[in-house]
Amino acid sequence: VTQKKLAVIGGDGIGPEVVDEGLKVLEAVAGSDAFAITRYDLGAAHWQRTGEVLSDETMASLAAADVILLGAVGAAPGATDVPSGLLERGLLLKLRFAFDHYVNLRPSRLFPGVETPLSDAVVGGREVDFVVVREGTEGLYCGNGGTFRGGTPHEVGTEVSINTAYGVERVVRDAFERATRRRNKLTLVHKHNVLVYAGGLWRRIFESVAEEYPQVSTDYLHVDAATIFLATDPARFDVIVTDNLFGDILTDLAAAVTGGIGLAASGNINPSGAFPSMFEPVHGSAPDIAGKGLADPTATILSVALLLEHVGLLDEAARVERAVLADITARTPGTKRSTSEIGDAIAAQVCDEVAAKV
Amino acid sequence: VTQKKLAVIGGDGIGPEVVDEGLKVLEAVAGSDAFAITRYDLGAAHWQRTGEVLSDETMASLAAADVILLGAVGAAPGATDVPSGLLERGLLLKLRFAFDHYVNLRPSRLFPGVETPLSDAVVGGREVDFVVVREGTEGLYCGNGGTFRGGTPHEVGTEVSINTAYGVERVVRDAFERATRRRNKLTLVHKHNVLVYAGGLWRRIFESVAEEYPQVSTDYLHVDAATIFLATDPARFDVIVTDNLFGDILTDLAAAVTGGIGLAASGNINPSGAFPSMFEPVHGSAPDIAGKGLADPTATILSVALLLEHVGLLDEAARVERAVLADITARTPGTKRSTSEIGDAIAAQVCDEVAAKV
Ligand SMILES: CC(C)[C@H](C(=O)O)[C@@H](O)C(=O)O
Ligand SMILES: CC(C)[C@H](C(=O)O)[C@@H](O)C(=O)O
Repeated sequence: VTQKKLAVIGGDGIGPEVVDEGLKVLEAVAGSDAFAITRYDLGAAHWQRTGEVLSDETMASLAAADVILLGAVGAAPGATDVPSGLLERGLLLKLRFAFDHYVNLRPSRLFPGVETPLSDAVVGGREVDFVVVREGTEGLYCGNGGTFRGGTPHEVGTEVSINTAYGVERVVRDAFERATRRRNKLTLVHKHNVLVYAGGLWRRIFESVAEEYPQVSTDYLHVDAATIFLATDPARFDVIVTDNLFGDILTDLAAAVTGGIGLAASGNINPSGAFPSMFEPVHGSAPDIAGKGLADPTATILSVALLLEHVGLLDEAARVERAVLADITARTPGTKRSTSEIGDAIAAQVCDEVAAKV
Repeated sequence: VTQKKLAVIGGDGIGPEVVDEGLKVLEAVAGSDAFAITRYDLGAAHWQRTGEVLSDETMASLAAADVILLGAVGAAPGATDVPSGLLERGLLLKLRFAFDHYVNLRPSRLFPGVETPLSDAVVGGREVDFVVVREGTEGLYCGNGGTFRGGTPHEVGTEVSINTAYGVERVVRDAFERATRRRNKLTLVHKHNVLVYAGGLWRRIFESVAEEYPQVSTDYLHVDAATIFLATDPARFDVIVTDNLFGDILTDLAAAVTGGIGLAASGNINPSGAFPSMFEPVHGSAPDIAGKGLADPTATILSVALLLEHVGLLDEAARVERAVLADITARTPGTKRSTSEIGDAIAAQVCDEVAAKV
């Protein structure tokens, strides 16, 4: 067995805490030799201390990893010394773009017993289990745009959404592939009646790739309508494919309706393997609860499961998922465990199962 | 009393049906002389018949109206002869932009007894009553963008979001004014950590206008986080101000959590009065249920209330709102009334109240 190089970026706020629990479970399931871990100190605190967001050396070092686990980056909302977007554009999005993470994979599953804001009439007895394939390398996230006559009463701020046939096709194809490994249902979400240029491109490519997958039933929703269905009938979805911004919005809502961002995992995947893929919880750095042991590490642990799957450790991935499921199902509503207690419990579940097998 | 010129565009699908009920209630509350009604035949069906979306003559005629009531425009999703965006960009958005409807006002209120997809734990006993002030004349809706190398494997589709200090300031100011007439709480929604140019502009203007309204407490949410709160704590909102696209997305979700788009009203308002404002339900033309008397006209009737308020008939507006409230509260879950039955019932409520007063 060759050891995999795992780069770990704890980040800010609760990031380092949840990542520690993720690594705890990783070691429990895969042993301590499967991954060679290198930790990187990056984020708002690092920037405040060093003035550096992400150096070329660090980028080169990260690029040499097989896979990356990230907690969360981002300063407290009140941290006026950190320019808006500095960490997001300079670190998180820089990694996603530089490492060509064009599949931003975000599974949403309502685990049994998990509290949802939706009523029983909406979700009771229905299986809510879908995955959003969010494009991760273009669209409105490309960073093109600017400020003209900045600071004057005539200021103009522009943002350009760039969408390429190349970029759209590869992610649409990935989504179709995933649909065939699931329930053969794929929904395209866009807003092609208003964003006619980008929407037209997405739609035409979607329809042409669909011809290669006759077994997959497809539909289309405008993004506004998609939010309605996420609130009123989330069980209707299997795989959703959408652009970077719509994916950002829909996956937070999807997380909310399936029990909150404390449970939402994600993978920033470069399927070609040319660059390391990166796994991270959907939630942010939550500075208000940092250092108090209040954060739920489950989203990070589920991201570790996605990471294991990505590197081909399929049994291990499934084991982590089962352990999380068992832990969640056993949760008593109202009782509150600390970050490390949850990590310990899930790690113990993983070990129990391994022991039971022997 | 001077008669107001009311332009009525029924549009497609269920549009004409719901508009008829809106006019029924309008007449019941304001009498048949208060408005001089001119009907305009526009929409997908009109285009299919005449090849014309919106002529200059029609535009000029509409511009001379005091106020516009619109049902819905848009062909059936399967109508392959109607190019995507033709009606949306060529009619609906054309009116909003040409008549400078910079305040797209979308109230969301969970009426007692109305079914919501949210659980009792989320909304039970809480007052959900907020309004979204959506910018209506710029942002990603401006129509700038294009297709490059169209139809080739190297196609690039761009969409440009244009945001001006002028455009942002006036809508932000309007939202602050509305907040002072409500519960003095205003939330800015954007995504300034990614869309740094547009987001920076919105944020700086919001903060500077806020200084003039010390009585209004303000906060900021990224659009993704805002969807979470709409699903988990909609009662936290009073007034939300946001850009054109985020407003589109949030108001559909807001409608969903407050009982569905069958109840969601909107006003496309030009506060200066230089152009006619336009009132319309948030829902679309729903071609699948058109002509069957299945559409709920309540959203249109509530849009008529907004229209009455806009033209200064405040008592009449309040009366329509009370009639709708009474009608909704009296609804028996499970029983289904036709479009005109609902219109009749609300019109009767309005008349009862008028009679009771005499
Ligand atoms: C922090 C931010 C840049 C990021 C995004 O918008 O992609 C986050 O919201 C996410 O969803 O991962
Ligand atoms: C039909 C469409 C152009 C429109 C919009 O996006 O504004 C609609 O969704 C709305 O919210 O009024």
